[in-house]
Amino acid sequence: MYNFAPGPAMLPDVVRQQIHDEWLNWSNLGFSITEVSHRNQLFEHIIDENIALLKTILSIPDEYEILFLPGGAQTQFALIPMNLLGQSQQADYLVYGHWSQAAYQEASRYGDIKQINILSDSVPYSLNIGHLADSIRPHSVYLHYCSNETIESICLPDLAASLDLPIVVDMSSDILSKPIDVSRFKLIYASTQKNLGVSGLCVVIVHRDLLDQAMPLTPSILNYKKQAAAKSLLNTINTFACYVLNLVLKWTQAQGDLAHIAQHNHEKAALLYSYLDQQDFYQNQVAADYRSLMNVTFSAPNQELNQLFVKEAEKHGLYALKGHKVFGGMRASIYNAMPIAGIKCLVDFMRQFAKQHG
Amino acid sequence: MYNFAPGPAMLPDVVRQQIHDEWLNWSNLGFSITEVSHRNQLFEHIIDENIALLKTILSIPDEYEILFLPGGAQTQFALIPMNLLGQSQQADYLVYGHWSQAAYQEASRYGDIKQINILSDSVPYSLNIGHLADSIRPHSVYLHYCSNETIESICLPDLAASLDLPIVVDMSSDILSKPIDVSRFKLIYASTQKNLGVSGLCVVIVHRDLLDQAMPLTPSILNYKKQAAAKSLLNTINTFACYVLNLVLKWTQAQGDLAHIAQHNHEKAALLYSYLDQQDFYQNQVAADYRSLMNVTFSAPNQELNQLFVKEAEKHGLYALKGHKVFGGMRASIYNAMPIAGIKCLVDFMRQFAKQHG
Repeated sequence: MYNFAPGPAMLPDVVRQQIHDEWLNWSNLGFSITEVSHRNQLFEHIIDENIALLKTILSIPDEYEILFLPGGAQTQFALIPMNLLGQSQQADYLVYGHWSQAAYQEASRYGDIKQINILSDSVPYSLNIGHLADSIRPHSVYLHYCSNETIESICLPDLAASLDLPIVVDMSSDILSKPIDVSRFKLIYASTQKNLGVSGLCVVIVHRDLLDQAMPLTPSILNYKKQAAAKSLLNTINTFACYVLNLVLKWTQAQGDLAHIAQHNHEKAALLYSYLDQQDFYQNQVAADYRSLMNVTFSAPNQELNQLFVKEAEKHGLYALKGHKVFGGMRASIYNAMPIAGIKCLVDFMRQFAKQHG
Repeated sequence: MYNFAPGPAMLPDVVRQQIHDEWLNWSNLGFSITEVSHRNQLFEHIIDENIALLKTILSIPDEYEILFLPGGAQTQFALIPMNLLGQSQQADYLVYGHWSQAAYQEASRYGDIKQINILSDSVPYSLNIGHLADSIRPHSVYLHYCSNETIESICLPDLAASLDLPIVVDMSSDILSKPIDVSRFKLIYASTQKNLGVSGLCVVIVHRDLLDQAMPLTPSILNYKKQAAAKSLLNTINTFACYVLNLVLKWTQAQGDLAHIAQHNHEKAALLYSYLDQQDFYQNQVAADYRSLMNVTFSAPNQELNQLFVKEAEKHGLYALKGHKVFGGMRASIYNAMPIAGIKCLVDFMRQFAKQHG
């Protein structure tokens, strides 16, 4: 069974197995990790290790705090403006898909937020990012974007290298999928249910420069500065998600560095896109430069065939290929944990289905 | 091994075992519950069942919404005033211990909050609740209290029956431990890591009358009305905590009704308190009328003996008996999942330790 769910998504096989193996007797205690206090040294060690592992894997400079906050990325859609726009209430948001649009809408409840639409009207979809610097307001506190839109399967190229601005980025769906230069960002956030484990937690990597800008009404538990001072243990944290994050980070490190992981992800996506490019039964509507490596959408010639595809695929052990309801069609989410064998199975099935129904 | 941790706390043995048994192949999918989308029918069924189970077990009237929100009770310390004080910013808070104090402090950032101190200065600690109605302001939107203070092991008697006021109550540590008349409250909240499973989720049972009072800056994901309309699935929920809640609710129901559970909890606590009352090696500082049935604190004659007690107890399979750092001594947390055999073991050990060091 290969699980293509967009998030909550598949865990690496060895992580799933390890959770099972130590569930009844974690750390030789005779019970599970979820029954240990968050104030226990054994648990605090997990938090310390998670910070150290993230620092190593992503080469995070010392000027950044690494936080583990309740909720996922959507909770941060409000918490980012609440934590950063306390002094000046101006920020700019790039919008090119469902999640960047949702982030913009929530932020605009908190200040003077400019929406910069970068999605072209034409199909295949491409992005207008040629003259971005002209659209961004010089006094904005930050520029926000989402690096990969999971629903439409569009992604941005590396903008941070060319924009000398305080950038806040939602990397929920592509963190740890490729090397990034953390020093080019002021804040990186990612919910944990895609490349970082299970749901109910958000990793926030934030430059210390930004810790004194919270609005007065920011809830204490969701205040970056207060949680940074308490090593994210101001309150009872989602201990299970921290534990799974720990196992996933160790698994990620064991795969090689991020350059190696990126190459592997390129190979995986290339299998799907090269098949899509050489046939005309399925359609993918994204221009080659902006294709996501984490989520690949495609659709059959009509709605009935889309539904049949999803059903038949499941019978063949290919799970959760239904596209998001706002976009339709099919979507294969292929984060770090998806092995290349899963992609090969999927392409084989796509070929067979096209032959039968084409 | 008996685990007396205050929360995250022990799971019922059968729940821990069931999670293990179905972890690798939940619902016959070939992977774990955490790898299923929160939009999947199988998962939505868990949410529906949790609502139905809570309604049945607590006899919740139809006018209440049942929400599952990110974070624990401490996140709600801010979210309750944000959601309820949008029109009138006045509320009253009873304070008699660490958590009611913390709830008051956070709330006072959001409005005109009156602190009503009900803890007597004398030892043994008792509560001044004789003339409460005189202290409560008639135009306050709600009266907030915490039904059980886990750190000091003090609890309130049933105030709701005698106060005709909109009451908001933090039941994190005693929900499902005894019958309550939900209709006497406007809002009941409880984090899940004590009597409801694992950490990272808060159950909020809120009367529909209160859903139109949110402050404009309330984050959407934490807005009661918006989450009620979306059955708590506005965003990716902590799916694992919802799943464990489901198993714990089914286990609770299998124990009998709440009157039966309350009787069992009385018997458990009585074993400890009756031993404490018949000896003079250990001290418990709470007056009999206000003793908690969920957390029992006690201390040996000096700090060295307290430390030795905690260490030796662990060697005897009695885990996590160290008191909270702000209160010292020992604390045995004995929520629903703690079997009477655990209490008997603890009392035996206390007797033995007192004999050796008294």
